[in-house]
Amino acid sequence: MTKTPLPQELIRKKRDGRELSDDELRFWVAGVTDGSLPDYQVAAMLMAIYWRGLGDRELATWADAMLHSGDVLDLSSIERPKVDKHSTGGVGDKISIPLAPAVAACGVAVPMVSGRGLGHTGGTLDKLESIPGFDVRLEVPRFTELVRDLGVCLIGQTDRIAPADRRLYALRDVTGTVESIPLIASSIMSKKLAEGIDGLVLDCKVGRGAFMKNRGDARALGAAIQAIGRAAGKRVTVMITAMDAPIGTTIGNALEVRESVAVLRGEGPADTRELTVALGGEMLAVAGLCSTDEGRKRIASVLDDGSALDIFRKLVEAQGGDPRVADDPAAVLPAARHREPITAPRDGFVETIFADEAGIAALILGAGRRRKEDDVDPAVGVELAVAVGDEVRKGQPLAFLCHNETGVDAARERLAGAFQISEHAPGRSRILEVLQ
Amino acid sequence: MTKTPLPQELIRKKRDGRELSDDELRFWVAGVTDGSLPDYQVAAMLMAIYWRGLGDRELATWADAMLHSGDVLDLSSIERPKVDKHSTGGVGDKISIPLAPAVAACGVAVPMVSGRGLGHTGGTLDKLESIPGFDVRLEVPRFTELVRDLGVCLIGQTDRIAPADRRLYALRDVTGTVESIPLIASSIMSKKLAEGIDGLVLDCKVGRGAFMKNRGDARALGAAIQAIGRAAGKRVTVMITAMDAPIGTTIGNALEVRESVAVLRGEGPADTRELTVALGGEMLAVAGLCSTDEGRKRIASVLDDGSALDIFRKLVEAQGGDPRVADDPAAVLPAARHREPITAPRDGFVETIFADEAGIAALILGAGRRRKEDDVDPAVGVELAVAVGDEVRKGQPLAFLCHNETGVDAARERLAGAFQISEHAPGRSRILEVLQ
Repeated sequence: MTKTPLPQELIRKKRDGRELSDDELRFWVAGVTDGSLPDYQVAAMLMAIYWRGLGDRELATWADAMLHSGDVLDLSSIERPKVDKHSTGGVGDKISIPLAPAVAACGVAVPMVSGRGLGHTGGTLDKLESIPGFDVRLEVPRFTELVRDLGVCLIGQTDRIAPADRRLYALRDVTGTVESIPLIASSIMSKKLAEGIDGLVLDCKVGRGAFMKNRGDARALGAAIQAIGRAAGKRVTVMITAMDAPIGTTIGNALEVRESVAVLRGEGPADTRELTVALGGEMLAVAGLCSTDEGRKRIASVLDDGSALDIFRKLVEAQGGDPRVADDPAAVLPAARHREPITAPRDGFVETIFADEAGIAALILGAGRRRKEDDVDPAVGVELAVAVGDEVRKGQPLAFLCHNETGVDAARERLAGAFQISEHAPGRSRILEVLQ
Repeated sequence: MTKTPLPQELIRKKRDGRELSDDELRFWVAGVTDGSLPDYQVAAMLMAIYWRGLGDRELATWADAMLHSGDVLDLSSIERPKVDKHSTGGVGDKISIPLAPAVAACGVAVPMVSGRGLGHTGGTLDKLESIPGFDVRLEVPRFTELVRDLGVCLIGQTDRIAPADRRLYALRDVTGTVESIPLIASSIMSKKLAEGIDGLVLDCKVGRGAFMKNRGDARALGAAIQAIGRAAGKRVTVMITAMDAPIGTTIGNALEVRESVAVLRGEGPADTRELTVALGGEMLAVAGLCSTDEGRKRIASVLDDGSALDIFRKLVEAQGGDPRVADDPAAVLPAARHREPITAPRDGFVETIFADEAGIAALILGAGRRRKEDDVDPAVGVELAVAVGDEVRKGQPLAFLCHNETGVDAARERLAGAFQISEHAPGRSRILEVLQ
């Protein structure tokens, strides 16, 4: 670059729908990272990108610059293929917990860096931390060691991974620029590619309880993620899955760990297991181990034969948690002091369970965060007693509020409003489509 | 308003093309004024407004909230109709200087609050300050007194007029959100309506040397200005005038005062006089004094009979300047030490004189500001020796650089590039259309 561009000229360029050059994009992300660009110029650019989007080349460069704004893990010493899964966030989405050990049990390394919950969607880190002693803040050498020796480790994002994304995300949150496909895609990929992975499976949630409300947006996000992956030379499979009703039967941190352990024992709700098997099958395929069909069979097998559970037990122990959680979760996990039923107002079928309303009910009880700095109560949450399609009788429990006397009235109202009971209700798979 | 809106929700609303309510708009402008809204949220909202625009009701409310963000002058003690003129900015645009005294001489009060020059366009305050002693920083009581007694006073904007506009303008300047019709219109009108006027004539410049590059944008700006005026119960006439070639024969502060005095003596370049007469005619019509045609005649008459010059002389004296400028400008005004010709490279006709290039030449010599904090040299500038349509011979002077040995080489090159000499060139009026 021969001369330093004027920031407002770059904003105007994007504002007018013209493409930014690679140098200009890298100048911008560098200015975001080192703080030389003020918040107000970054905010204006974010709104211009929200409006005009980023072309494939722009998107790839933007994401690459964000990725290289911080540390990129070097896992090249690990010979196994390294594949991760990312979910765009759902209600009751505990899939990473059974999935990562199951995939590791099949011979693929899973270096998983996860996030915390915000709003009505939960976060894997909060769920893991409900296991007494479990430490998600391991240093990189220990993380690398566990991924090498055990095939899996689950930690939180460090300050040194994609710092540009942290600043951009904080600004997007307060400037109405969160819901932008290229900004979401580059945010996800800059963090995931910093893990040093060979491939990724993206679980792109769509529906009332998800960030993406319609199939078209979900497909567009998947395409953007894949474009970034292609440009980075990584294999990326996108699975679009329904997020209208909560996943499985539990919402809340310790409750979801309990459900995860059930899946790792070859049990658990059908949909939680189905998603685990399907996403695991794609991960094995992305790793180049086998076909997706064969991959699904292998995942089902390691869930059923105890080898996934065995890895999970070792993982919990290696990360400082109480390994007995794998065998007797009820003895180890915190439990709420009260368990109060929500009952069916009339006879009928469960037509739907609004995931967002159920998620907010759990949030109100203390299972989630309204703001980043809030604490969570690991014990509280919602247990569903019925699934979509079930026939119910008036007065029969639909769900239970597991609470510690916080937010009970508001949560009860929310949760009751989450159930739609009608004459007839069709069941269907959560998996809508797969983009390979 | 029952509850405080979340700023990012208002940004999202505008971003999605939905209308903001009056309460929401007033909440926003109040937050801009008192600083409770951070720069980054204001910047994002400005880009969203740039994108989605403001409807007529939104625009009127936004401008009214900006107007009331500071002091509004109360000139109700002055019985004469109070009318001002505003120009969107041009090169060589000294019209306010002959116009304001001429209109006052016809019985209309002109409480004129002007700005300083920035970039290639000049500002009335800088021009007036080239008159030794002239003070543009009068207090409001003195300003009001002069408007009452003399019919005219010319001052600069105080910190207490439309403070919301000052903050918004500074942010727009660095976030690529300057060129937005509703933001420009509300910026102009919030300041003008704070003068306590009954009506306004807007000289909306269009062309290479102007902010508005095409007629459609100029019309849209005029319509937005009129919508705000209507909502505020004020009469507003918009005149769209060509700003391709510089106005008159001088660019530079003292040089333009000299030309203004010539117009006030019934002399001066034809186009400077034409604009003065035409804008003055509209001002008298807006004041309800007479028709535009009759108004033009009256303005021409006070220019020719010395009564406008007489008001000007008194105005200069009342504002602390040397009143001899009205009779012998050369004796009073500062002059550049050097006067260097730019000559015609070949025979032909002056097809055009690019106003922006000529304005930049004067700027380079020190007549204008690159940045707000720059000083100006009142003596330097450009004198045109020919007008558009004139026939010229090779070697004949086209213009003179009046300089004090600063920026001469760069200015010479710019100014030479401003002239297009061709086989044939049509003359035309600067006045393109009038929106009443």
